[in-house]
Amino acid sequence: MRLISFKHPDGPRPGVALTDKVCLDLVAADRSLPRSWNALFARMSEVRALADRWRNPSDVIDGVPLFSRSKYPLLPPIPSPSKIIAVGMNYRDHAEEQRKAPPPRPMLFSKATTCLQADRGPIQLDPDLTQVDAEAELAVVIGRQGRGISRADAPSHIAGYMCFNDVSDREAQQADKQFFRGKSLDTGGPCGPWLVTPDELPPLAHGLDITGALNGEVVQHSNTGQLIFPIDELIRFASLHMTLLPGDIITTGTPGGVGAYRDPPRFLRPGDVYDVAIEGVGLLSNPVVAL
Amino acid sequence: MRLISFKHPDGPRPGVALTDKVCLDLVAADRSLPRSWNALFARMSEVRALADRWRNPSDVIDGVPLFSRSKYPLLPPIPSPSKIIAVGMNYRDHAEEQRKAPPPRPMLFSKATTCLQADRGPIQLDPDLTQVDAEAELAVVIGRQGRGISRADAPSHIAGYMCFNDVSDREAQQADKQFFRGKSLDTGGPCGPWLVTPDELPPLAHGLDITGALNGEVVQHSNTGQLIFPIDELIRFASLHMTLLPGDIITTGTPGGVGAYRDPPRFLRPGDVYDVAIEGVGLLSNPVVAL
Repeated sequence: MRLISFKHPDGPRPGVALTDKVCLDLVAADRSLPRSWNALFARMSEVRALADRWRNPSDVIDGVPLFSRSKYPLLPPIPSPSKIIAVGMNYRDHAEEQRKAPPPRPMLFSKATTCLQADRGPIQLDPDLTQVDAEAELAVVIGRQGRGISRADAPSHIAGYMCFNDVSDREAQQADKQFFRGKSLDTGGPCGPWLVTPDELPPLAHGLDITGALNGEVVQHSNTGQLIFPIDELIRFASLHMTLLPGDIITTGTPGGVGAYRDPPRFLRPGDVYDVAIEGVGLLSNPVVAL
Repeated sequence: MRLISFKHPDGPRPGVALTDKVCLDLVAADRSLPRSWNALFARMSEVRALADRWRNPSDVIDGVPLFSRSKYPLLPPIPSPSKIIAVGMNYRDHAEEQRKAPPPRPMLFSKATTCLQADRGPIQLDPDLTQVDAEAELAVVIGRQGRGISRADAPSHIAGYMCFNDVSDREAQQADKQFFRGKSLDTGGPCGPWLVTPDELPPLAHGLDITGALNGEVVQHSNTGQLIFPIDELIRFASLHMTLLPGDIITTGTPGGVGAYRDPPRFLRPGDVYDVAIEGVGLLSNPVVAL
């Protein structure tokens, strides 16, 4: 299933993209359901039953609970997670372009949850910031609370996978050494368009082609098989220190080709479009505009 | 006012500590009020009117909406903020003990919001972690959403102040260089017992004595007048990159005397008690226990 959140006039709502054009409004289909994926992940069998029922509907009246994808704006699939955990240098080729040895353990940092942006939503650039870069990433979303999760149990804590653009203000990253500020720009966390459930992908989303394209030119290209620390290890490692809650996002690091390491460097500018495409997961496309 | 959150059988609720022993249940006093401070900060005039009405009640029936402080466990004053922003090296004496020059700009990092712990709640130590340290800090809580906030406007975005213990796993901090993992231990963010509204303190909480005491011995002692970057500047600086939401916590850095820089180093051990006391703000006391 492709899980979405969308901007209903009554507030954010969860839904399922049944086809490229038709979506299911889960709250309209069953008023007893919670209005956020963070709570809905505990009721996925009901979600799946509703999606099955409405995939081939015989009794749609005035469209409800189905709607055309163009009717409501999409939101980030998880609009309000408790945290976004990001991983530094987790692709072999990204480590190589920085001439660094692969790290001995995952290097975690975080992005403020206020950075999230939907597919097609603009990455807004403050004109004072001239070194803002894009990073194509595969993100995993937690579906079940846990701490001290073993690698073997990690898959049962996964709600799904989505494309993520880990937009980064390199100037702030360099100035602070700590990555948090430079990684937390408003609109600097595009993700989506949807969350793909694990049953649609290989185990742990291994072996998927991932690309980042600037204005149509592929500048990042790798495969999730190149992850230094695979997704079950990231979940185990992060959950040693902190409880992972339903809706928490772990974005797993970016492959080589980011703007800061190109020669000459090439940062985002108003008018650009950056696309993150992951095989079987989706295409996330965001224009860059001046704030 | 001293704003609290407490564990009502129906879920977390906001309240006001009217005296050391008597608290007001705001939801019981007015069922139309939201159940979280994040939403309630927009309605502080109503909160203040209720607190005034019940401070000298003539018509309490069976205690409701008042309750004895011992009746319900306190929660962190803000149980679910969107983010916790922390500041590295923001006291002159803490910079000196590390033999470092004061930084040219605030160095921000973040703590996962799952780390929050209430006053009196245990700091739970995984036996594998042997370099966990305490840091006495003054935290400011945002009451009104904003981005690009000027120093002049910063006070109007402040909901209040509280004691905070920025518990830190030094081993993870050193290993990762990024502070996030080491700062995000579950129970590693004690705060409270309450949030003190700005009208009870000097402007920007300037000039307050702050101490950290390990088992009754004062090991950290400074004054908020020693902050390198005062609170209005922290709000301005952070809000350049990211929207601050009601309930967001900025913990402003710790004075000298932390365990890692003592000779020999002295880290937290089960059986310890760490107290953070700030003049006019409160006393936050947390025992350390083995996980």
